[in-house]
Amino acid sequence: MEVKLMRNILGANDEIAAQNRKIFAERGVIVMNLMGSPGSGKTTLLEKTLANLADKIKIAVIEGDLFTAKDAERIERAGVEVIQINTAGGCHLDAPMIQKACASLNLAEINFLIVENVGNLVCPAEFDIGENFKSVVLSITEGDDKPLKYPLIFKESEAALLNKIDLLPFTNFDLQSAREDLTTLHPTIKIFETSCTTGAGLDDWCAWLLGKVAR
Amino acid sequence: MEVKLMRNILGANDEIAAQNRKIFAERGVIVMNLMGSPGSGKTTLLEKTLANLADKIKIAVIEGDLFTAKDAERIERAGVEVIQINTAGGCHLDAPMIQKACASLNLAEINFLIVENVGNLVCPAEFDIGENFKSVVLSITEGDDKPLKYPLIFKESEAALLNKIDLLPFTNFDLQSAREDLTTLHPTIKIFETSCTTGAGLDDWCAWLLGKVAR
Repeated sequence: MEVKLMRNILGANDEIAAQNRKIFAERGVIVMNLMGSPGSGKTTLLEKTLANLADKIKIAVIEGDLFTAKDAERIERAGVEVIQINTAGGCHLDAPMIQKACASLNLAEINFLIVENVGNLVCPAEFDIGENFKSVVLSITEGDDKPLKYPLIFKESEAALLNKIDLLPFTNFDLQSAREDLTTLHPTIKIFETSCTTGAGLDDWCAWLLGKVAR
Repeated sequence: MEVKLMRNILGANDEIAAQNRKIFAERGVIVMNLMGSPGSGKTTLLEKTLANLADKIKIAVIEGDLFTAKDAERIERAGVEVIQINTAGGCHLDAPMIQKACASLNLAEINFLIVENVGNLVCPAEFDIGENFKSVVLSITEGDDKPLKYPLIFKESEAALLNKIDLLPFTNFDLQSAREDLTTLHPTIKIFETSCTTGAGLDDWCAWLLGKVAR
């Protein structure tokens, strides 16, 4: 019985995700669902990404957090339109939350919508929000065993960012092993090695995003 | 209707958690539910903790992961009895999983059972597994904003470990701010600053655990 209802919840979610996807397509907005553990560096990456792309495409951001508007305040300082969703304890964003948030956005005026999901390497990967593609941020300090331990999120993501690469010398993270596991799980996944402290990899990442939006 | 069923699920969980708790009390086993984000350092902390406490108390470990037995293999090398639970994608451990795992443990022979939960700063805090107390590991690299963003897990935990403290100089983590937020959320929380690389704080942490078990 629990399983059945779970399917109904996901069914209802998928229906609204399809509606979201249709609206995004009609307005010509590309949507990225950005996921990763708490503290993997999603918001800082987003700040750097916005600074890099601001003069090239028109971006808006939806921030997902359990509580607080800390992340939205940071993004707002970048001069970008941002909507904060508070899930009040919920462990992921779902399609109805995105639908509701988009009612406050002027989609006709943007090319690219970035949705920063709740910090969680498990649940967000299970919920379609109507995005065009997903990306996952894994920080070097989390360890190279994470792709095999949390496979779904890496299978679902078109890009994986090995972030905080500047901390590599202070950890036992095995880059080659992580890369091999990622491509075993998802042979076409695009891997970036990034650092928001040194700026490493950010130009490649932003160029890739630009290619996704401008194609 | 979803909310109602959710309550039923949690109700059933709480009932089995109470059964677990009764059995643990009868056998004189103290149980810790160890939680934290993916890559916060739970398993390495556990390895160091086992090495420190092995000659003082008899410990067993239950390892929770979505997939793989990587963590159980690491713990087994420490010479401690360990049961691996694979949730097959599930984002937390629940009381029935612990009940089932305990059927394979000789509880009469141990004083302390450590349950390493799935790497997740959200969902594990919502499920009582019958433990005596919870502890949460937050790595310095995750950022000082995490207590306010993920408050439940810090409210539920008797101890918070600010782990990977050796990486503090390479981050912008504000220790005082994190400590203030933790004690605002949970005035009696015990805070440890730990590093499994340098060994900092581990003696205090292990002495505190010993006090919990031997009281």
